Amino acid sequence: MKRIAILGSTGSIGRSALAVADAHPDRIAIVGLAAGENADLLAEQMARYQPATVAMASGDALDRLRQCGVPGAANAISGRDGLVAVATAPEVDLVLCASSGTEALEAVLAAIEHKKTIALANKEVLVMAGGLVTEAARRNGVMILPVDSEHNAIHQCLHGREASEIRRLILTASGGPFRGRAASELKDVTADQALRHPTWRMGRKITIDSATLMNKGLEVIEAHWLFGVGANQIDVVIHPQSVVHSMVELTDGSTIAQLGVTDMRLPIQYAFSYPERWATRLPSLDFDIVRAGRLDFDVPDTAAFPCLRLAYRALDSDRSLPVVLNAANEIAVARFLEGSIRFPSIAEIIERAMDAHAPAEVASLASVRAVDQWAREYSLETARGVELKA
Amino acid sequence: MKRIAILGSTGSIGRSALAVADAHPDRIAIVGLAAGENADLLAEQMARYQPATVAMASGDALDRLRQCGVPGAANAISGRDGLVAVATAPEVDLVLCASSGTEALEAVLAAIEHKKTIALANKEVLVMAGGLVTEAARRNGVMILPVDSEHNAIHQCLHGREASEIRRLILTASGGPFRGRAASELKDVTADQALRHPTWRMGRKITIDSATLMNKGLEVIEAHWLFGVGANQIDVVIHPQSVVHSMVELTDGSTIAQLGVTDMRLPIQYAFSYPERWATRLPSLDFDIVRAGRLDFDVPDTAAFPCLRLAYRALDSDRSLPVVLNAANEIAVARFLEGSIRFPSIAEIIERAMDAHAPAEVASLASVRAVDQWAREYSLETARGVELKA
Repeated sequence: MKRIAILGSTGSIGRSALAVADAHPDRIAIVGLAAGENADLLAEQMARYQPATVAMASGDALDRLRQCGVPGAANAISGRDGLVAVATAPEVDLVLCASSGTEALEAVLAAIEHKKTIALANKEVLVMAGGLVTEAARRNGVMILPVDSEHNAIHQCLHGREASEIRRLILTASGGPFRGRAASELKDVTADQALRHPTWRMGRKITIDSATLMNKGLEVIEAHWLFGVGANQIDVVIHPQSVVHSMVELTDGSTIAQLGVTDMRLPIQYAFSYPERWATRLPSLDFDIVRAGRLDFDVPDTAAFPCLRLAYRALDSDRSLPVVLNAANEIAVARFLEGSIRFPSIAEIIERAMDAHAPAEVASLASVRAVDQWAREYSLETARGVELKA
Repeated sequence: MKRIAILGSTGSIGRSALAVADAHPDRIAIVGLAAGENADLLAEQMARYQPATVAMASGDALDRLRQCGVPGAANAISGRDGLVAVATAPEVDLVLCASSGTEALEAVLAAIEHKKTIALANKEVLVMAGGLVTEAARRNGVMILPVDSEHNAIHQCLHGREASEIRRLILTASGGPFRGRAASELKDVTADQALRHPTWRMGRKITIDSATLMNKGLEVIEAHWLFGVGANQIDVVIHPQSVVHSMVELTDGSTIAQLGVTDMRLPIQYAFSYPERWATRLPSLDFDIVRAGRLDFDVPDTAAFPCLRLAYRALDSDRSLPVVLNAANEIAVARFLEGSIRFPSIAEIIERAMDAHAPAEVASLASVRAVDQWAREYSLETARGVELKA
């Protein structure tokens, strides 16, 4: 029986993770749940799974949870302390970090110090503090299992092969809803258009990141930390059908790829079951009918989608620049979702913050938070300057 | 230093294997060579690699080798005894079986009894005597490493995963030069046309087998023995670009594929280096330019290419029928290459032999040879009946 805590249980990944738990009641026990603001859904989940430890993002959310009258709500904790409590409770074997953004950083580090296996669905943790997190994992002998479909694919392709066997990693990208458009055609696209992802159903923030290709940029940085290879060994290939989830080219020239249906239950279950693999009834790939018998590949257009180029630039610096990239992106995407800035302004805001920042070491969580804070304030200010008038 | 003997050193695979040895003089020593009839080339190879043991198919060939005046020719041996001597010499670590046809069967079994690792590029060995060979390998703790690009791909995809993790194996097939043609359009195709393979350069027999899809049928049987899965867990998918060499679908629905350039040095080196992987300068797959950015997949047309259906039928019987399939195919392909029968007669001759045969156990090499002999004679007779008049 694997005892699992979920950070971000009411989000898209969190709900899929509970579906995986439902499919394997004899193998998985849900012992901790942390959510953001959705008190109603968390109350339902608590009634069903009866987790020992529960947390919500804010005091307000906690009040709403308590008003639901679900048993256990009285002991729920709010804020980062709540995330840490859920992630480090003694009964927990594995922590699924599926909360979006940077809130879970402390909780992940604390879980690692408590020797919990980490299933990581959150990109920002490694983008912001990849050095700190992977060093802590190494020191504590803790495994970080990637849930993101691309990194999960690479983990499956490597299947224990050493980094020294890798010639390059090839991350596939659907290209998002604006694939094939030139930079000039992206000036007036709306958030609604950007939210129509062609192949994956995901949360709003990550769907916008897919439209800008920043999602792939963050994945390049994440791959660097997860698999120990440099930016020059990580390539991105556009693959609109999202059937090949990613590939590893080995030193002899042989390439191993992982393919599958676009269903996040697959990588989540992989992380929950590892090193075992549990049978599912998920459908087989159908090479003649479902997929029109064809897989396409193309190079990314970094002129139209400069966020990918910015991410490579941030990774090359190997210091605090990825923190700036990520923080500025969070601010810019939030503004775009509100309708207050144009799509191309997202990259512009990020680049300006990167240009203004003097890269420094990120030797502690405090220094990460300081750079993060600076970049958010700087980007908010920049966003105001490029704001659309109503 | 790995000490390698090559059965079939003057053929297509044998020459590629020597190219691999040339690329790794510090890791590979060629200690034995066996060839068919090409005495001139074997003499050259002997001069270069100075193998301790040498064999040729016939006494005639041996005479020609001796006339070349190369040192060591005096000790060369002919016939199956020669193959056995090369395969079992005490200095040999690994035997590459790259001779075509069934001549090497005794040598492979003898090598296994002498605990030599087997790199298997010959399909007929497993098609004819898969039970005997895999049982001997199990008993002696000997590894059989597949060199055929499809099975080598599956070996790389599995990378130690157990057969219990396999939902199905997916063998890819280029479809050969006649892909897309209806049965009615295959009546008058010539051997020259059949020898123009779209993606792989190989020997004549295997190139015709690719045109009839019998090559894929033999691979289905081979995969059954190598990976311990039934015919109902082995699918064939047409993939004209030959970039994806084969795939494994695992029990959770995830599929692992191996991709690469169409160069046999890659799987040969994999078998020579296993469990290590040695770097090469073989080119990376280029997803945007070389391959026109597109991979296609389709189901095989067993109406136009009945040999694939016949192979599944032979495997389902799980007794002597694969021996008949293989022997009848060798006779029919030889007749087609001579121009004495039509292309559709290949499948017809095989099916008639299968229909006429009463499947029996194949518990010994003698019973394999007896069935083989019967099927060859029966098929020669059938071939005479469908012969084209000059």
